[in-house]
Amino acid sequence: MGSTLRCDSFDATELSQDAFLGGRLVIGQPKDGYRAGVDPVLLAASIPARAGERVLDLGCGGGVAGLCLAARVPGVLVTGLEVQPAYADLARRNAEANNLALDVVTGDLSNMPDTLRQQQFDHVIANPPYFDRRKSTAARDMGRERAMGEGLALADWVRAAARRVAQKGSVTFIQRADRLPDLMAAAMVHLGSLEVLPLIPRRGRVARLVLLRGRKGGRAGFRLHDGWLLHEGPEHVQGGEKYTAATSEVLRNAAALPFPV
Amino acid sequence: MGSTLRCDSFDATELSQDAFLGGRLVIGQPKDGYRAGVDPVLLAASIPARAGERVLDLGCGGGVAGLCLAARVPGVLVTGLEVQPAYADLARRNAEANNLALDVVTGDLSNMPDTLRQQQFDHVIANPPYFDRRKSTAARDMGRERAMGEGLALADWVRAAARRVAQKGSVTFIQRADRLPDLMAAAMVHLGSLEVLPLIPRRGRVARLVLLRGRKGGRAGFRLHDGWLLHEGPEHVQGGEKYTAATSEVLRNAAALPFPV
Repeated sequence: MGSTLRCDSFDATELSQDAFLGGRLVIGQPKDGYRAGVDPVLLAASIPARAGERVLDLGCGGGVAGLCLAARVPGVLVTGLEVQPAYADLARRNAEANNLALDVVTGDLSNMPDTLRQQQFDHVIANPPYFDRRKSTAARDMGRERAMGEGLALADWVRAAARRVAQKGSVTFIQRADRLPDLMAAAMVHLGSLEVLPLIPRRGRVARLVLLRGRKGGRAGFRLHDGWLLHEGPEHVQGGEKYTAATSEVLRNAAALPFPV
Repeated sequence: MGSTLRCDSFDATELSQDAFLGGRLVIGQPKDGYRAGVDPVLLAASIPARAGERVLDLGCGGGVAGLCLAARVPGVLVTGLEVQPAYADLARRNAEANNLALDVVTGDLSNMPDTLRQQQFDHVIANPPYFDRRKSTAARDMGRERAMGEGLALADWVRAAARRVAQKGSVTFIQRADRLPDLMAAAMVHLGSLEVLPLIPRRGRVARLVLLRGRKGGRAGFRLHDGWLLHEGPEHVQGGEKYTAATSEVLRNAAALPFPV
């Protein structure tokens, strides 16, 4: 625990069991490690995957995004790549516990495992680490640090995603809005038909997160969508966070969060 | 007229007289040349200039943006740079006709006139040509073509703006939203504290235009604001475009359109 370097798997006592999608999923997460918020749920909800299509989740962690997608779209074929063995193992256990198919490969996206190198996916998704460690302080927990601090540049994530996605397939990232310039610069190099869906905490506020999508070989112009609103009303409402009805449907009822057409 | 190359000035019969800011300004514009829409009005409304501050409008055309700013902020000192002599002359005549101060320099921003080279401005604004001529067709009117087609890359505009703005001063561009990746890439090189305010035609639609602002030497993180809504209600309402109350205040009553803080 703490700053111990973890190599294999989590003990059950180190995990909490957390409900996602209104209890459709119960996900084991390390009490002291990286813990998923709503971000991977929103990412998964945005993916236009259909039954029979193959999806790769780069840096899948405990598997929340992939499992949310598998829960919403029966018949979708999700593969996760995770560099930390303990999290890869956890993702496999979470898939099994929820009776969902999730193929988890342990490996590094900057040194793509052969089994993935030979595959192309209809959709690639990623929720890369949010903090640029050149500008911030490391987390004490090593697993949390690996999941949140940035070992690889965003450009490496985008390049790996673009290599694994099929022609015309989609690549979708969720990322902190303040990283959008770097993310877009990388996406411009490797993808086309870029579009950004800002996730706005409240009307009139700065976006906290963005969903960025591109298509391999896409030729459409860049599109900046009107923001998706997360919360109703003004800030600091008594009783905590009141989500908009549409966001609540996504988080509690496994609804889709489609990019506008 | 037509495809004639114009060198000096417009004949009065070639001009229409158009009201801006609810009639506070009456602006002569070539009937067949480049004609301002709401874009320079929105740009001018967004500039946080105060009395006594100096503002440079790169590519000022007939002077609409600069004159809107001068009308809203008494005591602001606006300079326009315009490469086409006929438009520079028109901007001077428009300033005089509206009894507003606008110092217009005829010259090319890629070969900055000495008189401007020796100055620094508190704010630089620009409404660069919207169409990348590598990907589109030229307008028949030469003046309109020069104003709408892109002779210089957006990066040249951003570089020129960054050179002329004082430390911590603001540079603000209005541009088609689909050019945002190129504009942001250039702005990342020359400016800091970037922020984007999308201009959304209607709730839930793709942004048509963006306002991008940066500050010279700024160190704040990138901010993507919730979109500014231009029109109320669904599309194709009978009776044409119904602006939101806030947008109407900007266009008809010379209100400010501040970036959210």
